[in-house]
Amino acid sequence: MPSGFLASAAACGLKQSGSPDLALVYSESSCSAAGVFTQSLVRAAPVLLDEKTLKNNASSIRAVIANAGIANACTGENGDHAAFEMQSLTADALGCLPDQVLVLSTGVIGVQLKMDKIAGGLPELKQGLSTEGGEAAARAIMTTDTRPKYRSIQVETEAGSCSLGAMAKGSGMIHPNMATMLAVITTDASVPAQLLQKLLKQSADLSFNRISVDGDTSTNDTVLLLANGASGIKVDTEAAAAAFSQALNSLMIELAKDIVRDGEGATKLVELHVKGCESEEQALQIARTISTSMLVKTAIAGGDPNWGRIIAAAGRAGVDFDPDKAVLTVTSGTEPELVLFSRGMPLAFDRKQAAAVFSAEELFITLDLRQGEKSTQMWTCDLTTEYVHINADYHT
Amino acid sequence: MPSGFLASAAACGLKQSGSPDLALVYSESSCSAAGVFTQSLVRAAPVLLDEKTLKNNASSIRAVIANAGIANACTGENGDHAAFEMQSLTADALGCLPDQVLVLSTGVIGVQLKMDKIAGGLPELKQGLSTEGGEAAARAIMTTDTRPKYRSIQVETEAGSCSLGAMAKGSGMIHPNMATMLAVITTDASVPAQLLQKLLKQSADLSFNRISVDGDTSTNDTVLLLANGASGIKVDTEAAAAAFSQALNSLMIELAKDIVRDGEGATKLVELHVKGCESEEQALQIARTISTSMLVKTAIAGGDPNWGRIIAAAGRAGVDFDPDKAVLTVTSGTEPELVLFSRGMPLAFDRKQAAAVFSAEELFITLDLRQGEKSTQMWTCDLTTEYVHINADYHT
Repeated sequence: MPSGFLASAAACGLKQSGSPDLALVYSESSCSAAGVFTQSLVRAAPVLLDEKTLKNNASSIRAVIANAGIANACTGENGDHAAFEMQSLTADALGCLPDQVLVLSTGVIGVQLKMDKIAGGLPELKQGLSTEGGEAAARAIMTTDTRPKYRSIQVETEAGSCSLGAMAKGSGMIHPNMATMLAVITTDASVPAQLLQKLLKQSADLSFNRISVDGDTSTNDTVLLLANGASGIKVDTEAAAAAFSQALNSLMIELAKDIVRDGEGATKLVELHVKGCESEEQALQIARTISTSMLVKTAIAGGDPNWGRIIAAAGRAGVDFDPDKAVLTVTSGTEPELVLFSRGMPLAFDRKQAAAVFSAEELFITLDLRQGEKSTQMWTCDLTTEYVHINADYHT
Repeated sequence: MPSGFLASAAACGLKQSGSPDLALVYSESSCSAAGVFTQSLVRAAPVLLDEKTLKNNASSIRAVIANAGIANACTGENGDHAAFEMQSLTADALGCLPDQVLVLSTGVIGVQLKMDKIAGGLPELKQGLSTEGGEAAARAIMTTDTRPKYRSIQVETEAGSCSLGAMAKGSGMIHPNMATMLAVITTDASVPAQLLQKLLKQSADLSFNRISVDGDTSTNDTVLLLANGASGIKVDTEAAAAAFSQALNSLMIELAKDIVRDGEGATKLVELHVKGCESEEQALQIARTISTSMLVKTAIAGGDPNWGRIIAAAGRAGVDFDPDKAVLTVTSGTEPELVLFSRGMPLAFDRKQAAAVFSAEELFITLDLRQGEKSTQMWTCDLTTEYVHINADYHT
């Protein structure tokens, strides 16, 4: 964990399993902070509260409190009060002000938070704070995730090195009534709040906004970034900002890929490149259509080099292109690249080689429209019967 | 079948099973004709040919020839020649001109049509033409369909009655390399080609463009409508056009619902109403998002009254509305209506009653945004493990 940050976890009884369900990330000094939030119209109470807190007080944040088990979404005015109470109780326990605390919730929606349980867990959370607490915190925020997700990276600047640490949860872009994708990123660099917000937004667009497990987004999606400056490194030059931004991109992309790898029922990670487009928007529109196509995702589950489904998905994306120019290639990274489709028609390819590519755990698909210079990439996973089991057999 | 129309089927060897794979619909006199086609950029050769034929000669069509097994899509220039040859050979057999024949293909894409087989089947097709041939023709165009789909309806006008008949195929909006949704509608009314095109377009927007099995659309989607006037009834007044249009809507909506009922792996038909919107476009945008949501469709497969997934899908549809005003209700038609969500929160409902609603074969879901007068409806089906099996285990 970056210098000056502590974390902890506790079990307060929100998860029926009795597993840890509260996580705390604490900074020994004030942080500048930034956040990006779900674009859904239906937004959970903690999302609304954090937006307000960051608007008023982005330069002196001290802590993030998170619970799993109950999302505090679709909970009306009582839900707003509960989020505020969670913030206040945490501030009291830590000896700071309420608007120095950010709040995250994930779990069942439409159910009120059990504030007595959260209050009951706070002493253990505070007492447990440690520089080694990151993994436990990452475990506590899991819902349908099968494994905790945390990563760190060093940033080298002219003035010296600082570091970034992160934890995330998420296994479907939305899990049903188990709301989604949360991430907390910490750094011991010193970064002004406004710049931090800009860099976080940029990185989120290249990472968490480029993944799809099932095409759905949640009421609670939140990514928070806290910078406490404990490394003594100031991100105050263009070069330092570039180095920091590059490390942040890299960290967030890897974390986003971790979420896809752990996607509900997923057995394969697919990296999709759409290139040769007239604009990045067009590339993204095609990439989104392909990476959310049920037919493409089931073909990948079945290990079938089904070029037809990929081309058909591109064809209905609403972007004007000439199918006769498009070239579709696939590779597993280790196997040589296979050209599946070119000049409007399928190519004869080696079935055995194609089977090897499609049975790899990671698959790279490139669609080159050959009519411009713009490109994008997205990450998706296969659609298996296990996904349907998880989501059809889940009962509210 | 409407007066003056004959149909037949033959097995020419395009389907590996040896089942009938050629269908012919023939009119004893010239027809005005109309067509609506896939909006995909990747369009099959017969789609391109029919568009051209209708542009030049929409007032004297005599026949529709259809094959299943090979889609003649992504087949380059050879594919264009094949579609034209199929048109010409059929015209020769029937003693009419090539541009009096429309051509349909469905099946595997990226494979060239086997013209010798089609030529070989034409004599049997011609010989078999009969007023009783409709069901056999509907069977011949099936691919992954589990049952043939055909319907008819009477149209009552001031001047007397005429009739409409129709056959369709389709089981996924696209089945993988087995292209999609085809329909041929015939009527013995006399309708000018231009009016016919207008009425067909209107009805398609209310029927086939309102269904979703898996959100994918195909390279070959086509609906053709032929009017031969054999009933002596002329659709030449506003009242007659209204009566005809109403019957056509009704026929096409029922046929579209037949396709959803026979959707790949589907066990339930869901009728979704989105109402209380400021515009029909907004209603449609929300309806499309809900009816293609994998989480909504798996919840319905599991028989779970999961209001959260429906509200979350509406929330990410990109339409501005106030979740606190929205009301979500469900009914099976026979069971009383259940209110699941209102004023931004879930309502307590009878679990047993909800389970009864969600285990019915037909389910009606209504989302009322309560901020306008506009509404729309769509039909979708549940997403089952069987869908994934069909599409993951299918190999090109």
